Amino acid sequence: MSELETLLSRISAPDPAPGARAEVHLDQLTKPQGSLGRLEELALRLVEITGDEHPALPRAVIFTLAADHGVVAEGVSAYPQVVTAQMVENFVRGGAAINVLARQAGADLVVADFGVAAPLPRWAALAAEGMGPRARLVLSPIAPGTRNMALGPAMTRQQAVAAIEAGARLVEAERGRGVDLVGTGEMGIGNTTAASAIAAVLTGAPVEAVTGRGTGIDESTWQRKVAVIRRALAVNRPDPRDGLDVLAKVGGFEIGGLAGVILAGAAHRIPVVLDGFIAGAAALIAQAVEPQVRHFLLASHCSAEPGHRAVLARLGLAPYLDLGLRLGEGTGAALAFSMIRAALAIYSEMATFKSAGVSGRAV
Amino acid sequence: MSELETLLSRISAPDPAPGARAEVHLDQLTKPQGSLGRLEELALRLVEITGDEHPALPRAVIFTLAADHGVVAEGVSAYPQVVTAQMVENFVRGGAAINVLARQAGADLVVADFGVAAPLPRWAALAAEGMGPRARLVLSPIAPGTRNMALGPAMTRQQAVAAIEAGARLVEAERGRGVDLVGTGEMGIGNTTAASAIAAVLTGAPVEAVTGRGTGIDESTWQRKVAVIRRALAVNRPDPRDGLDVLAKVGGFEIGGLAGVILAGAAHRIPVVLDGFIAGAAALIAQAVEPQVRHFLLASHCSAEPGHRAVLARLGLAPYLDLGLRLGEGTGAALAFSMIRAALAIYSEMATFKSAGVSGRAV
Repeated sequence: MSELETLLSRISAPDPAPGARAEVHLDQLTKPQGSLGRLEELALRLVEITGDEHPALPRAVIFTLAADHGVVAEGVSAYPQVVTAQMVENFVRGGAAINVLARQAGADLVVADFGVAAPLPRWAALAAEGMGPRARLVLSPIAPGTRNMALGPAMTRQQAVAAIEAGARLVEAERGRGVDLVGTGEMGIGNTTAASAIAAVLTGAPVEAVTGRGTGIDESTWQRKVAVIRRALAVNRPDPRDGLDVLAKVGGFEIGGLAGVILAGAAHRIPVVLDGFIAGAAALIAQAVEPQVRHFLLASHCSAEPGHRAVLARLGLAPYLDLGLRLGEGTGAALAFSMIRAALAIYSEMATFKSAGVSGRAV
Repeated sequence: MSELETLLSRISAPDPAPGARAEVHLDQLTKPQGSLGRLEELALRLVEITGDEHPALPRAVIFTLAADHGVVAEGVSAYPQVVTAQMVENFVRGGAAINVLARQAGADLVVADFGVAAPLPRWAALAAEGMGPRARLVLSPIAPGTRNMALGPAMTRQQAVAAIEAGARLVEAERGRGVDLVGTGEMGIGNTTAASAIAAVLTGAPVEAVTGRGTGIDESTWQRKVAVIRRALAVNRPDPRDGLDVLAKVGGFEIGGLAGVILAGAAHRIPVVLDGFIAGAAALIAQAVEPQVRHFLLASHCSAEPGHRAVLARLGLAPYLDLGLRLGEGTGAALAFSMIRAALAIYSEMATFKSAGVSGRAV
């Protein structure tokens, strides 16, 4: 079997029994049944995913993958392509939003180059200086950016497989340190264009309904973005029944890498916390490749990108936060880690009615 | 001036200038403008409330006030009255949801008896054993529970003033230790009945629209609860222009105490994070007493109690979380503290476009 086939062969739906027992335990805690709402549902899902009925506070890792997109030649973004590399440098220096929020959430941060177009020496050297014990840089470029999907496939099918496999290897590498919770993040100028194309193919929604303002484009740039995505779909005709075909024709290297992170999380029964719209598109690719992956996914938040709701609906996920975020990088996932830690603390640390001597319901 | 008059004289709208400068700073950070959505709005409001343009991660205190309600004689709750005292004991022992979530949020917890009906010796003795350095018990009972509001006023006007003043003194006592962020919490079997009555008077909404299932009552108990609230309003005719009158006639001691906590927070320009429906009712009382208090309030979450939305609308607040919580105790406030810490970390720790050498917008 290929590396990808081996990965997929390890993914199967979790046993529902531990989750059912978790529900019984939650109902014995000193609170009216169900009164902690989605925090209880979250605890239950974490037990179900891991099969661990005595979950500890997890060792969490956020994977922030960066790559460039040939489609920026069509003028679909508010920022120049060089910002992808500059932001990776910012990640390495620790000054970006994801650095701040990962630290705040007590999570490790793995930054990975999956195909940044600009030359990297300056920040690669910086990385050697060390990002501290909680952050790491991995160089795993597939190519210096995808090709322009408006003119033909963004990448070859071999590159699509390579991106997924390289993403899965990121998770494998972290397993040596221990990883109990995965968050997905990304950086790539132009990647909302790729994500919107994927969302249109795999949700069936009209292009204009799943295309947003990205980093903040104006009306005429938005109209161009919609037209470019329509052209890319017409030129490439991606097959919605074939996740690899969709990834190759209108995806991105960081999106493929995230699909690999997601599949590897599922294979190892590690809960995968999706960030926003781009991570959702990666999850759609992963789901198209292996439908059972959905059991292992949690949606951190609902993005301000209009296509995210359709993506989450297709994945069958309800987000925990709705804060109008549209930054990516893994920021929403990092924020949701606080909720996950709270849910697990509730599950593990609260007294029961019996242990606390509190009376039950009278009526 | 009375203690209450002195308190109210110290509350005035904050200067908008620091908030405006915070907005300029947020727009210089390495992210598309506004892309962290409500997290940015939260940072801005914290700067505006405190006037501190270099906010540190705050020392946070959650005030969980407990008291009993005479109206439980009407059969409006799923749990017996003794549960109020039992849960205070649970707070003292550290086994309740608010203990777990306060610890998780790095917040201190002040538990205060504002009028629990059952005798307290057992847990008062436990309290002497010590609740640890991050939790304290304060005994400040106004009376052993309110009177039955279906038959007449829940308390005297003097008791209403005493409850507010005692609540304000809780905040004063914490100022010696340093408190930069206040969370509100409560425990009191029957207190959703009082909160619904207050909400009906001060929002103008019909009783049935602001009356919910509380700890989980069935349909016939809910109908009785609505009828009891209607009777209490007919018997007492609380004056919506007089917050003290509303508190005295259909309120509770812990609700009055929380109104005092809120007013004292506003007087000292400390952000006050409201928990759920009961805390919202206390904020309505505080707002009726002193309208400028609204500038200092943050809504942590939208409760599953149906009246909470109307309460938040009347307060002019948009909640940050919507997790279907309906427990109270301050649990939603504790969860929101994670968001507040994240917002302040973003504000203080992120690189600017200039410092990181990241290019700005191209179009």
